[in-house]
Amino acid sequence: MEQAEKSAESAGADARVPYEGLHFLPVIPNPSKIICLGLNYAAHAAEGGHDRPTYPSIFMRGANSLTGHLQPIIRPLASEQLDYEAEMVAVVGKTGRHVKEADALDMIAGYSIFNEGSVREFQRKTSQWSIGKNFDQTGGFGPDFITADEMPPGGAGLRIQSRLNGEIMQDDNTDNMLFPVAETIAILTECLTLQPGDVIVTGTPSGVGHAHTPPVWMKDGDVCEIEIEGMGVLRNPIKDEVPI
Amino acid sequence: MEQAEKSAESAGADARVPYEGLHFLPVIPNPSKIICLGLNYAAHAAEGGHDRPTYPSIFMRGANSLTGHLQPIIRPLASEQLDYEAEMVAVVGKTGRHVKEADALDMIAGYSIFNEGSVREFQRKTSQWSIGKNFDQTGGFGPDFITADEMPPGGAGLRIQSRLNGEIMQDDNTDNMLFPVAETIAILTECLTLQPGDVIVTGTPSGVGHAHTPPVWMKDGDVCEIEIEGMGVLRNPIKDEVPI
Repeated sequence: MEQAEKSAESAGADARVPYEGLHFLPVIPNPSKIICLGLNYAAHAAEGGHDRPTYPSIFMRGANSLTGHLQPIIRPLASEQLDYEAEMVAVVGKTGRHVKEADALDMIAGYSIFNEGSVREFQRKTSQWSIGKNFDQTGGFGPDFITADEMPPGGAGLRIQSRLNGEIMQDDNTDNMLFPVAETIAILTECLTLQPGDVIVTGTPSGVGHAHTPPVWMKDGDVCEIEIEGMGVLRNPIKDEVPI
Repeated sequence: MEQAEKSAESAGADARVPYEGLHFLPVIPNPSKIICLGLNYAAHAAEGGHDRPTYPSIFMRGANSLTGHLQPIIRPLASEQLDYEAEMVAVVGKTGRHVKEADALDMIAGYSIFNEGSVREFQRKTSQWSIGKNFDQTGGFGPDFITADEMPPGGAGLRIQSRLNGEIMQDDNTDNMLFPVAETIAILTECLTLQPGDVIVTGTPSGVGHAHTPPVWMKDGDVCEIEIEGMGVLRNPIKDEVPI
């Protein structure tokens, strides 16, 4: 054992390390399920040319697609069309199936922030978006896990914002979700069992890069920040994938 | 330790238990990723009203959706539209990214059979199929894991068949995949890292229930079998979900 480790260990719970030296992992590094909602803010659905939905568009990400706070989001060699999406995360804390909307928020252990990085060219190669949502290290998840008791019920009424190199790109409020967290849980558990550690990524407001004219894609050297009121700021530099 | 367990343990590798008493788990009970291809046989794409694709339609299932050989596939309370899909599975045995098609089959540890049970009503609620593919215990996976050396390269040239209550519903050959296993691995690893234990479910031939007139849905008491030449028979009874 190295001396430095020994000292830290003997210091126990009092040990403090400088924030600057921390390596942030995704809040849940290997969730059993990462369930994402698309088109969950009316204005964002409209900017993508979609009607206002009557049921959420649901897809899944794999843990390979996650990256922690301050860790790079990787722009792949395969496409330049790397886009940001500011999203609130609800982390499941209990096992449940057929959970009524009135009971649904008891299922939530806490909240966090997600940058649901999307490779639009691949998202739109077919009708199924999943491959564009599953590139390695494109989904920022952090910085912190905020326990549910510290947040308003369902994470409602919170300002949500994305900034690219300091410029505000998305600026909305979680009150404008078409399917709020409790209703989403009722809808999901009609079909499947939610388990502790499952992650629900609740969709993004309008203002994504592909809806700009011309489109705005994230590129090497950019810094993307997602802020949700009371949850802090998720900050990720963008790096080009290194050929292997 | 109970006496029976002790005896079995002392018998070691020579211990035999009757096949009838075995409880089969899914071949990989908790894969890191379950990646599914849609519309991977031309005739099946056509029966669903889709054009012949130029890129595979990709979606993901969660481990909650799996069920083992001889275990029930559950028809949910939420819908009567429970359909079968005979599919071959390729199980990943190595970590890889940017794997060339010529090297791709080295990535495969083995093969198995999948009944990619689909709740069509939910699959088609939006453009995204995932929720209809993720109902609890709707995806039969088994009976066995067949090592790659026992199969032709890429699992090609094998007859694949589904039978519902003994009647042949799908009957095709894995040679008719639009995106064979090696090409699929090259396509996937352009985007993401495949890891040992990842499961690739390679799509289904024509003859699914929803394409019949009138449609054929699986119901309580039915038995669905999927057979792939040289891999055995995956057999699942259908049971209604019990209200909780």
